[in-house]
Amino acid sequence: MAEHGTDVLAVSVGSDLPYLTGYEAMPLERLTMLVVPSGGEATLVVPRLEAPRVTTAEGLVTVRPWDELEDPVAIVADLVRRPGRAAVGDTMWARFLVDLLDHWPTTRFQRASEVLGPLRMRKDPAEVAALRAAAAAVDRIAAALQAGEIALVGRTEAQVSADIGRRILDEGHERVNFAIVAAGANAASPHHEAGERVIGPDELVLCDFGGTMAGYCSDITRCVVTGDVPADIAEAYDVLQAAQAAGVAAGQIGATCQEVDRACRAIIADAGYGAAFIHRTGHGIGMEAHEDPYIIEGNAAPIEAGFAYSVEPGIYLPGRWGMRLEDIVVAAADGPDALNRADHGLVPVG
Amino acid sequence: MAEHGTDVLAVSVGSDLPYLTGYEAMPLERLTMLVVPSGGEATLVVPRLEAPRVTTAEGLVTVRPWDELEDPVAIVADLVRRPGRAAVGDTMWARFLVDLLDHWPTTRFQRASEVLGPLRMRKDPAEVAALRAAAAAVDRIAAALQAGEIALVGRTEAQVSADIGRRILDEGHERVNFAIVAAGANAASPHHEAGERVIGPDELVLCDFGGTMAGYCSDITRCVVTGDVPADIAEAYDVLQAAQAAGVAAGQIGATCQEVDRACRAIIADAGYGAAFIHRTGHGIGMEAHEDPYIIEGNAAPIEAGFAYSVEPGIYLPGRWGMRLEDIVVAAADGPDALNRADHGLVPVG
Repeated sequence: MAEHGTDVLAVSVGSDLPYLTGYEAMPLERLTMLVVPSGGEATLVVPRLEAPRVTTAEGLVTVRPWDELEDPVAIVADLVRRPGRAAVGDTMWARFLVDLLDHWPTTRFQRASEVLGPLRMRKDPAEVAALRAAAAAVDRIAAALQAGEIALVGRTEAQVSADIGRRILDEGHERVNFAIVAAGANAASPHHEAGERVIGPDELVLCDFGGTMAGYCSDITRCVVTGDVPADIAEAYDVLQAAQAAGVAAGQIGATCQEVDRACRAIIADAGYGAAFIHRTGHGIGMEAHEDPYIIEGNAAPIEAGFAYSVEPGIYLPGRWGMRLEDIVVAAADGPDALNRADHGLVPVG
Repeated sequence: MAEHGTDVLAVSVGSDLPYLTGYEAMPLERLTMLVVPSGGEATLVVPRLEAPRVTTAEGLVTVRPWDELEDPVAIVADLVRRPGRAAVGDTMWARFLVDLLDHWPTTRFQRASEVLGPLRMRKDPAEVAALRAAAAAVDRIAAALQAGEIALVGRTEAQVSADIGRRILDEGHERVNFAIVAAGANAASPHHEAGERVIGPDELVLCDFGGTMAGYCSDITRCVVTGDVPADIAEAYDVLQAAQAAGVAAGQIGATCQEVDRACRAIIADAGYGAAFIHRTGHGIGMEAHEDPYIIEGNAAPIEAGFAYSVEPGIYLPGRWGMRLEDIVVAAADGPDALNRADHGLVPVG
């Protein structure tokens, strides 16, 4: 906070609060807010009826329960009078910042991720172990998909998505974050919402899924083909697989995030698909499905040991097909550690 | 907007966007924002890779996809130059408001709910039908609980919570919002998180659960006892049930929200449990599990036809037991319509 000139840190709904205290706020209209003044004592402002839930934060912070007829934002504002600079949680609800603007009219606001991002990006061994366990769990689902154990032909994308969602929970995740299933031309929409389209034979089916397990996220993408692989798809997939492997390999400590993006993009562009790779190469992952660091042109931050992020290039031809291949990678002294081990090929299934 | 002096409405993640356009933004770091200038055309700023998902908003708004290396907040800010007053979505991520503060330094910000709340509070017949269907779905789960079809004794709260969660999905909800299961003294914590405590015989078990079905929320609370009902609990429950019924009956068009709260509270206070009813009587419900109107002292807004809200008084004795009884009610010309019909008594189960 001193480095960033931050007088107070105020975080609420999202993962900053559990990262710092072990306590997760309910995403509702009654404010929970951890207030950390620079050089002062931390206070957790929490609805009285949720105070009994606060156990992990005991001893670490002062708990200030508020009653139903109190104004919790006024309580927060009174803890630090008119700070010069306040860092607020990236994912807290804007309504509480609107209220804080009235109480702190001269304050300059910044995102809490400016202060906390550098801490949260460097995963410690316990965090890496949690990411590894979550990755192994979704690898088993990917292997089932590739083995033909998840029926595709004749089912709708939505049915397959629900099936994968159940498997994510059965594998020990506490929450499904997403289960994209996109068949045929639908796979050209990177964030396609699984729908009523029935999967047919000889189609590419893109599956991108993940959840949260013991507080840390999984995220994997694999593509399969229901039958014979058309020649144009096979050729493009070879390019994609080479690009993804190059991106993983580029994640050396000291290399920059944008160099990982460039390593993927160069191979895809050289093969003539540059305009079809319409998104960044990846995102950080941890307690949030997407967090710092972003693997994107313009991010010149050097990779440090413990950085965890996705490498997920894609090629999308609207109206025809789309494909993406994704692993989670952790930067380590002896080179990039790809947590996902499921077959990286374009596997034909029954 | 004219009534509220609002020059621009800007909404993002949450239910304002699907309420207005049918399109739901992905809760991720890439900004989706609907920008509605007073008297101008609406623009939906959306990540390029999510643009193919935008179908329901076609014809209603101009879609402005942004590319990975563009700054979406700058695009939003350029659509309306330095508005005097901007209403921002209550649940949008604060990081985007932090960024908007830089672009619109002289703007006064307000919550979008000030503008949209009065519209969203008055449910139309299709919305009431959706709430009724969701209520009937959780009523069936409550009936199964009361019939002893959901095993309690010997299972942990967390296991019963997971069981109820599966039933919420099996009944047709697309999402589980919460499934509180609190046994014995744990029920004295109104937002108790279901845990590893094993449910025993002759205990009160409080179950408060709901989800989202076809876009609208369910929310119900019932208590059961695993065996014989102790006399003190039976006596208090009679008070609770009478209070809840009085709260439902007080929801006449033209009565104020706080009068519903007072109707419940008076009966509980008269019986000597006033200090043990530590929360407001209820909350509005619709596309959000909690929304306007709040049924709380200080809310002098009169109830109008189509208002939908919970009536859920509770009595909590820390270290001993807790109880709550909740229905969703819709205000109608011929009187309050309680959507939940499951047995309101304290049912003993095997």
